[in-house]
Amino acid sequence: MKSTPKGLRLHIGLFGRRNVGKSSLLNALTRQDVSIVSNVAGTTTDAVEKPMEMLPIGPVLFIDTAGIDDVGALGEMRVQKTQQVFDRADIGIIVTEVGVWGDFEEAIFAQLQERKTPFIVVFNKTDLGAPDATHIARLDQLDVPWVAAAAEKGEGVLDLREALIRTVPDEFINPPSILGDLVPSGEMAVLVVPIDMEAPKGRLILPQVQSIRDILDNDAYCMVVKERELRDALDRLKRPPALVVTDSQAFLKVGGDTPNDINMTSFSILFARFKGDLVEYVRGTMAIENLQPGDRVLIAESCAHHPIGEDIGRVKLPRWLQQYVGGKLEFVHVQGHDFPDDLSSFSLAINCGSCMWNRREVLSRIVKCQQAGVPTSNYGLTIAYSLGIFERALKPFPAAMDAYRELGGSGPIIG
Amino acid sequence: MKSTPKGLRLHIGLFGRRNVGKSSLLNALTRQDVSIVSNVAGTTTDAVEKPMEMLPIGPVLFIDTAGIDDVGALGEMRVQKTQQVFDRADIGIIVTEVGVWGDFEEAIFAQLQERKTPFIVVFNKTDLGAPDATHIARLDQLDVPWVAAAAEKGEGVLDLREALIRTVPDEFINPPSILGDLVPSGEMAVLVVPIDMEAPKGRLILPQVQSIRDILDNDAYCMVVKERELRDALDRLKRPPALVVTDSQAFLKVGGDTPNDINMTSFSILFARFKGDLVEYVRGTMAIENLQPGDRVLIAESCAHHPIGEDIGRVKLPRWLQQYVGGKLEFVHVQGHDFPDDLSSFSLAINCGSCMWNRREVLSRIVKCQQAGVPTSNYGLTIAYSLGIFERALKPFPAAMDAYRELGGSGPIIG
Repeated sequence: MKSTPKGLRLHIGLFGRRNVGKSSLLNALTRQDVSIVSNVAGTTTDAVEKPMEMLPIGPVLFIDTAGIDDVGALGEMRVQKTQQVFDRADIGIIVTEVGVWGDFEEAIFAQLQERKTPFIVVFNKTDLGAPDATHIARLDQLDVPWVAAAAEKGEGVLDLREALIRTVPDEFINPPSILGDLVPSGEMAVLVVPIDMEAPKGRLILPQVQSIRDILDNDAYCMVVKERELRDALDRLKRPPALVVTDSQAFLKVGGDTPNDINMTSFSILFARFKGDLVEYVRGTMAIENLQPGDRVLIAESCAHHPIGEDIGRVKLPRWLQQYVGGKLEFVHVQGHDFPDDLSSFSLAINCGSCMWNRREVLSRIVKCQQAGVPTSNYGLTIAYSLGIFERALKPFPAAMDAYRELGGSGPIIG
Repeated sequence: MKSTPKGLRLHIGLFGRRNVGKSSLLNALTRQDVSIVSNVAGTTTDAVEKPMEMLPIGPVLFIDTAGIDDVGALGEMRVQKTQQVFDRADIGIIVTEVGVWGDFEEAIFAQLQERKTPFIVVFNKTDLGAPDATHIARLDQLDVPWVAAAAEKGEGVLDLREALIRTVPDEFINPPSILGDLVPSGEMAVLVVPIDMEAPKGRLILPQVQSIRDILDNDAYCMVVKERELRDALDRLKRPPALVVTDSQAFLKVGGDTPNDINMTSFSILFARFKGDLVEYVRGTMAIENLQPGDRVLIAESCAHHPIGEDIGRVKLPRWLQQYVGGKLEFVHVQGHDFPDDLSSFSLAINCGSCMWNRREVLSRIVKCQQAGVPTSNYGLTIAYSLGIFERALKPFPAAMDAYRELGGSGPIIG
């Protein structure tokens, strides 16, 4: 975390009067004690820079400012520093209290609009009253996202997270690499690409092409092989590869043919991280343990392809999951950009590999599920869990392994 | 050639009255003496089946029939056999003589139309007179391709070849495999994929993806590597690969890093064969030897992408070709489906890799160039020739090597 240079972090400017709860909002967002929280106005004595990992966006730099309305010699300095924050913020959060919006907030609002800095308005302390309707209407008209929160109670924090995902510029929401950290420069990966009925004639599917390109972009190289030829291909190498990546459908065969000391995972798990939030998916996947026959499971597919014979989302995944659960589940399928508003009836929501969604869309879905208290997973993780190969497939990802261990995971390893 | 099973050959039924010149037409098309040519009516005593390689379409089976109008006991048998040919022909050629179209030809015409068999009408012996204008108008209206020929003099043969290219069903004009014969099942290829400015972000270009897929479809596997990591990648193998394929732009570096006993070629040369006619391209490329400073060279690009910095068709290829010729050439660029009607001013026409054209279009262009007497080549072959790596890059292709040797080729080999 500390290794990300400051310049590459998303800079989030936190603007607002003294004592509107900026620090407690930041704490709630990051679940860490970052700055001293106090109800005496002006406790924060300087612009506090806090580099942190805000999952799932990644490395951010929160700049928690003192109020511009501050007075006195110390206040002067604060105001100057706050002004500098405008120059540096990639996005802004205006924190205000219900009923106190005035010239001060208007000034920040105007400043951010003029600089074309995307921003969010947070009405904090809603436990003391609701935000003004005229005000809300104006924000909606200007397309400025707003959130009602009671940060100290943790209320509205998921809404703010969702608003952040919507607001963060593309270059920060998209991770730089699919597997650059797993296959170092000069190293080699083996990509296992089964050719089944779903593979379009003469083509490779997008996650495979993107993975090959990503490997080349990182000055590494790869072997591309079907599952049947994998053993021969590995035998042909003088040194083992840094990583074996397989299509989830060939997990067991590839797990069997790949020596245990070689890292192995799936395209779908790589894309859980690249297009979504691997740690959250791991937590969600482990809820499979609690699934009961008859439970409702949502399956969301990004492409609206016509389902064919052994379709993964319609046939294989449901079969493997039901075998694990030991009884029939009720599956509901949605396609494309459709996603149910009411998720409350589902015990699990499973996304596909998400090649046709951008990361912003996938992260929004994950937060929607969190808000509804529904665990989320994706195809690769659900299949890995159902087939008993979960722990091995997560081994290359330390943060995911930590989440797995925290939840008491100790699944079987298939060699 | 003989190894192609009869069932996989394009069956071309040759229909027509006795002595209209079917056999001499066949000879002219294939440049071989297939059947006895005589001006005594009815020399051909049976449906003559001739399996042959009709470049560039590939393995064909000509079925040269006796006339349906034949009389007598022997004639009866001939008529019966001719009828069977209708059941077997993938396409038909009705051969007639100027001025003799009648009930007989109408019967064949109707039969082929009813069966929805695509066919071409050839008016042969045009040295004896021109085909009837009303007749021609009717064929044009029905969208039936027709050709005026004087087969014994070789006239109209290229027109017939072009009409055949337009008429042949897709499955016969498209070769089954890009490199299936070069990388046998269980074997391995190394694909060298430079990542330059032209490579679209997060993608591979189409010939690379199609080649990977083709290798997997043939139960082989491949290594994908940038030119810089090629040496390391080859060192990592216990056994050398069956083939190294490189982007033409990295020819010299890859030629240097690939041991001489390993076959090496380029994507562009593979696609010269897959999307065009490698043998004809080899002949055309060797005309570079006769290019003089000031000559006009046509460069045809299938995709209308915006030319960028070191664009291959605009910058690199012209530079290398001019260095070889030793002086300035006049380049004319066309894009997409544009192709000049008048080719007479060009000394050479060079096609790109042709990923966005189908084979039918490329073959039509080659015949158009042949008709105008303009040599044709493609990017990969021109670059290989200009860089002195032509012979090495052709070594994997016996038919191309034969054409090269026939024209006295003995270029340098760069190791």
